[in-house]
Amino acid sequence: MESVSDTSGGYVQSLARGLMVIRAFNESNPEMTLSEVARATDLSRAAARRFLHTLVHLGYVWTDGRVFALTPRVLELGFAYLSSVSLPEIAQPYLERLVAEVHESASVSVLDGADIVYVARVPTSRIMTVSINIGTRFPAYATSMGRVILADLDPAALDGYLSEVDLAPLGPHTITSPAELKTELARIREQGWALVDQELEAGLRSIAAPIRDRANRVVAAVNVSSHASRTSPEDARRNLLPPLLETAARIGADLAVAPSSRAVSRRAPGYADFR
Amino acid sequence: MESVSDTSGGYVQSLARGLMVIRAFNESNPEMTLSEVARATDLSRAAARRFLHTLVHLGYVWTDGRVFALTPRVLELGFAYLSSVSLPEIAQPYLERLVAEVHESASVSVLDGADIVYVARVPTSRIMTVSINIGTRFPAYATSMGRVILADLDPAALDGYLSEVDLAPLGPHTITSPAELKTELARIREQGWALVDQELEAGLRSIAAPIRDRANRVVAAVNVSSHASRTSPEDARRNLLPPLLETAARIGADLAVAPSSRAVSRRAPGYADFR
Repeated sequence: MESVSDTSGGYVQSLARGLMVIRAFNESNPEMTLSEVARATDLSRAAARRFLHTLVHLGYVWTDGRVFALTPRVLELGFAYLSSVSLPEIAQPYLERLVAEVHESASVSVLDGADIVYVARVPTSRIMTVSINIGTRFPAYATSMGRVILADLDPAALDGYLSEVDLAPLGPHTITSPAELKTELARIREQGWALVDQELEAGLRSIAAPIRDRANRVVAAVNVSSHASRTSPEDARRNLLPPLLETAARIGADLAVAPSSRAVSRRAPGYADFR
Repeated sequence: MESVSDTSGGYVQSLARGLMVIRAFNESNPEMTLSEVARATDLSRAAARRFLHTLVHLGYVWTDGRVFALTPRVLELGFAYLSSVSLPEIAQPYLERLVAEVHESASVSVLDGADIVYVARVPTSRIMTVSINIGTRFPAYATSMGRVILADLDPAALDGYLSEVDLAPLGPHTITSPAELKTELARIREQGWALVDQELEAGLRSIAAPIRDRANRVVAAVNVSSHASRTSPEDARRNLLPPLLETAARIGADLAVAPSSRAVSRRAPGYADFR
């Protein structure tokens, strides 16, 4: 039973805090003592202990009595999303065919707030300094997949995004001016694809195409990424773009006949919706 | 603030219930009304509403006012586990090399309770009727990866597992007798690898090798799977096993030099630990 204090205004603070405890574990903090969890989450030791023991009881956290760590059961929470939408399952075989043809990594992402989130991926050799998994997030503005999705936002949503986003220079060529980004997005909308050349990270070139739902709204993006030394921008346009556009069209066509409730979500993404 | 009633015995019921609401969404129920969530979770409508609104506020659930669905932000919870352990990141490039050599899908799994859970995967063409993602679970007894991990359990943990598991016939050749499974596990322990021939699903053959930590305990498994029409058991032993054993050894060697807190977890898995 939740008390009135826990759920004042209909908001269940214990749930929010418990999820914060899960998210406190990461690459820098794979194992933490009770005190470390309390510090990382700004909870009292007593509260942190209750959340941790609840998560241990549910099988999401393991402890030897001194330190705590997440168990692989936590993956089932993310898996609830992956199995509730059709897109990852529909996209996977098309990505496999695309990768067999172009011999470079290919991925599908959706927009979540100001980030893209990977929902399907077929990797080949690793290019980036960070490893990419399902669930990995990058700022949309610096990625080819983010740009084709941002290019389809309605003007008000795009202005909302541009007025809030911090266009940090993540790679040597990152567009950092809102006006310049807006011009580039208009060009992408016109041409129907995006090429990003070392804006997310030095050495990384990526080309993306939009995936459209049956209402012709962009709901996701598919990309192929390559090392700059292997693929010139002209190579990408000539060799990667045609099979990429075909892959995007095929995924969209399958998505259009999927049960609408499972396609991605029933509404096209708009930046305002996600905040 | 949690009330005494919410956290009696140190157990935060609101957290457990909120996580249950997330898990209620799946392939069969990608979108649900408030009433449907209440029914699926056995919560009152008032309680289900509070949990859903909290999840909407946190960005994990989307609603149009009538139906509710998970957002891709939910993936960040699973991602907390993936980024907190080294194994998926260490394994990925070795899996890519293995797949480039054998042209079949390869994966790495760990044991969680009575299931294996996929933590890294490089797919080629799809063989199984269900799609496999990071986070996908299968009963350990019917899989090659599960068998190499079960084969390393200490006798008490293995007896505990065998006394509780339901050895359902999932494929045409599934071992369903505990005594027969125990004999097979002893053989696997001896030979250092496992071949499973159409025990999880008709048409699926899979061969797995154990990944050992620096204390020589089996902490994970790596496999290659193929369609039965493509690969005979003899083909698997002759062509797949040597590169598979080399891959397992290389992953184990890298894991041994990873910071111990991040390797997988600091203790070897035992079935009893996971329940």
